[in-house]
Amino acid sequence: MTYCVGLLLDEGLVMLGDTRTNAGFDNIACYSKLQKFHVLGERLMTTLTSGNLAISQAVISLVQEGLPDPDTGQVETIYTMPTMGRAATLMADAVRRVHRTYGEGMRRQDVSFDVSILLGGQILGRTLRLFHIYAAGNFIEATVDTPYLQIGEHKYGKPILDRGVTRATSLVDGVKLALISMDSTLRSNLSVGMPLDLLVYRKDSIDGVVEQRIEEKDAYFEMIRDRWSRALNEAHREIPAPEWLSP
Amino acid sequence: MTYCVGLLLDEGLVMLGDTRTNAGFDNIACYSKLQKFHVLGERLMTTLTSGNLAISQAVISLVQEGLPDPDTGQVETIYTMPTMGRAATLMADAVRRVHRTYGEGMRRQDVSFDVSILLGGQILGRTLRLFHIYAAGNFIEATVDTPYLQIGEHKYGKPILDRGVTRATSLVDGVKLALISMDSTLRSNLSVGMPLDLLVYRKDSIDGVVEQRIEEKDAYFEMIRDRWSRALNEAHREIPAPEWLSP
Repeated sequence: MTYCVGLLLDEGLVMLGDTRTNAGFDNIACYSKLQKFHVLGERLMTTLTSGNLAISQAVISLVQEGLPDPDTGQVETIYTMPTMGRAATLMADAVRRVHRTYGEGMRRQDVSFDVSILLGGQILGRTLRLFHIYAAGNFIEATVDTPYLQIGEHKYGKPILDRGVTRATSLVDGVKLALISMDSTLRSNLSVGMPLDLLVYRKDSIDGVVEQRIEEKDAYFEMIRDRWSRALNEAHREIPAPEWLSP
Repeated sequence: MTYCVGLLLDEGLVMLGDTRTNAGFDNIACYSKLQKFHVLGERLMTTLTSGNLAISQAVISLVQEGLPDPDTGQVETIYTMPTMGRAATLMADAVRRVHRTYGEGMRRQDVSFDVSILLGGQILGRTLRLFHIYAAGNFIEATVDTPYLQIGEHKYGKPILDRGVTRATSLVDGVKLALISMDSTLRSNLSVGMPLDLLVYRKDSIDGVVEQRIEEKDAYFEMIRDRWSRALNEAHREIPAPEWLSP
């Protein structure tokens, strides 16, 4: 299982994913689910993937190696797409192409064609955008109403995002909220595991990217976990008792 | 969908459930999922049910009307069981019996045999216990390590319970935490709906039961929702920024 989350904020983009990959409980490995496609001063794109690792690796390879444009026949890659919308379309095309290659064989062996991709980024002079590409090869985009997108084991970490994240949330607070959301998931689902990969992109900077691998005993993450647990416990204790219940 | 939670605390038992029942998005009704089986001064038992309403109603009917004991042939009800363990066994027998009656017909129509039951309570002079009975007709019991049990849409409301609930949690705090857990679920899943049914039982009192129906605009629940959201937002803002991220 996987948990990945992307926040699209006025100040920029926060992308956070775990690294646990498993084929059954006894075959566990560590794979980064975060990819970066960066052309200095020109474009910054990043993806987080969940689902079948073979599928997501095939899709990521395809968009880097290139796909022929259906109209012009020219080979296009994620590095040549003129807009983020076109990049999302390319990624979705790649998913459908991988499905054409492997889908039938997987179906015959009762392996579901399971892949989800978050694609976020910005091309110089254009808008910062965040997309969720589905296994069917279609996609949605984060909007002002819902400034975050999640893939994988998303339920445990959703309540804190629903309460805390708006487009006006600062990048720093976005990082904290993403880490808290991940912590809630890690505590509840063993198949989501450390270390974590985090990417923070400051809007309109193109090259203003911070990447951070957060290992098991990372002091900052430990501090967040600890303070958050304490804050939650203090918060519920401070709520008055109901009148209808004697102490 | 449904969300129900039971907390087994040193001070007693907290049982909380929503009341939303739906057969598709356009056929929504309100049914209490909380049942009480009370013999004054002698026993207090309570159940919360999720899954197919026809199945859970059939099971609850059976344990009240009675089932023949496989050894003695004598008809036993939830009111005659000498221990909570036997009551859980009776409930599990009832689930299997309902499966024998309806399971095959449901399977033929591709309706899954879906039911989960939380059974908690105490018989005078015996231990307060809490069980989770599965659709297969087997069951588990809440222990010191895991003092709460959930059925239905359980993921959104789990992180707060994992962080806040131990056996030593007071009844009052248990009520607050159950309501916060429910609030997280209500916000994230539309198929879990108000009003809520709450039962609080003080250990060894047998008759010390508080039942509360919490309606849409309930002042106490509104206050909890509001204070909790504010506390969470303050808590994450107070966490310092990471060194590796400039503000």
